Amino acid sequence: MLTKGQIKLIKSLSQKKFRNEHQLFVVEGVKGIQEFLNSDFELFELFTIDAVFDSKVQLITEIELKKISSLTTPNMAIAIFKMPKPRPINGSGIIVALDAVRDPGNLGTIIRLCDWFGVKDLVCGVDTVDCFNTKVVQATMGSLTRVSINYVDLDEYLGAAKAIKFGTFMNGETIYSQELPSEGIIIFGNEANGISSKVEKFVNRKISIPKFGKLKATESLNVATAAAIVLSEFNRCSIEK
Amino acid sequence: MLTKGQIKLIKSLSQKKFRNEHQLFVVEGVKGIQEFLNSDFELFELFTIDAVFDSKVQLITEIELKKISSLTTPNMAIAIFKMPKPRPINGSGIIVALDAVRDPGNLGTIIRLCDWFGVKDLVCGVDTVDCFNTKVVQATMGSLTRVSINYVDLDEYLGAAKAIKFGTFMNGETIYSQELPSEGIIIFGNEANGISSKVEKFVNRKISIPKFGKLKATESLNVATAAAIVLSEFNRCSIEK
Repeated sequence: MLTKGQIKLIKSLSQKKFRNEHQLFVVEGVKGIQEFLNSDFELFELFTIDAVFDSKVQLITEIELKKISSLTTPNMAIAIFKMPKPRPINGSGIIVALDAVRDPGNLGTIIRLCDWFGVKDLVCGVDTVDCFNTKVVQATMGSLTRVSINYVDLDEYLGAAKAIKFGTFMNGETIYSQELPSEGIIIFGNEANGISSKVEKFVNRKISIPKFGKLKATESLNVATAAAIVLSEFNRCSIEK
Repeated sequence: MLTKGQIKLIKSLSQKKFRNEHQLFVVEGVKGIQEFLNSDFELFELFTIDAVFDSKVQLITEIELKKISSLTTPNMAIAIFKMPKPRPINGSGIIVALDAVRDPGNLGTIIRLCDWFGVKDLVCGVDTVDCFNTKVVQATMGSLTRVSINYVDLDEYLGAAKAIKFGTFMNGETIYSQELPSEGIIIFGNEANGISSKVEKFVNRKISIPKFGKLKATESLNVATAAAIVLSEFNRCSIEK
């Protein structure tokens, strides 16, 4: 049976303030939890309606699960993990930097893309949505365990970083004709406003994804879609080398 | 003031059954509505709290808007448009075919991608989510006005189509090393199960998006993310020709 304190703790972790205070976050669903259990992340508590895990679990009822889950259809189990200690940002390889990406689904997709394309470091400006937000955790499908994420003052970080900084802009050079390096920082901007002018001044190479023909097409691609295409091009260039 | 009949009609259009019966669908928000007004789509009724349109409008109160809107934060206006008459599928160029894509956000993103990359025809198996679903319409940002969408028996369509059929699979040839043609049908599959075995037998060329290195990375990319990368590669090859 869940104690009142446990219920209160889990519910409080839907808020960033309490996640940071307790240094804990929530993962839901058997598959997601399993990925975190197989990683370096440290388990705090695991609640499940069925003993499907090797780890120490606390059995709860379906009604209890429903009470603490943020999902409309809870999936068997809910776990609390400890936030990892921040790892220093690796200076080499491709680094992705986010300037005020607000949508949890977009951040989740970008974390999965980093994982897929071997980007080890994701650097987020402090106004990017929290990566331990429950919706982000759900959207990453375990990629969160394999990508190191740091929240920083983006101006300060970019000002000090020596790598070439790429940014996507409507009027940038086409990504197709470029020789893209295996080292560099790729910056993606906010859903509505793109890269802010404060961050733009650090960009050394403005790049863009060509539209087909001169059609009156959609004005812009969603940031996660743009990230997919740009990261794929960097991957292609690195494979072709 | 809204009549009871108008409220009932708008609410009913959240269901596919009634959209098909009335041949009508809903668009919300000033920007989206403007894109539909500037297209070949025919307006049926337009309700707004402020006369920001050139078209004939019916002024309503904010309380009325809140009552008929499906958004948590309604955006000024809500319009009913007539469904367009189906246009025959164009036999040439790149055609995208969807096998049971269920998520409205994914379909919306794929429609925007088709628009961006000049894909004029999107062919959906009947078990793909309805493109006039309110969430799809919201996600397309007007691209729905520029991409022709047909719902068909996918087996029948693919069986009869002469173009080369591409499908994304985990074990396909890398898209990077391929000469991709400017004509063909690219098939994307269901979020959980990929391309069904029924549809797989029509695929002539299995393609895949290479992961970086041999890392234990995320198992698969979201279908909209995969579509972004694959369509971008077809676009790159067509530009480089």
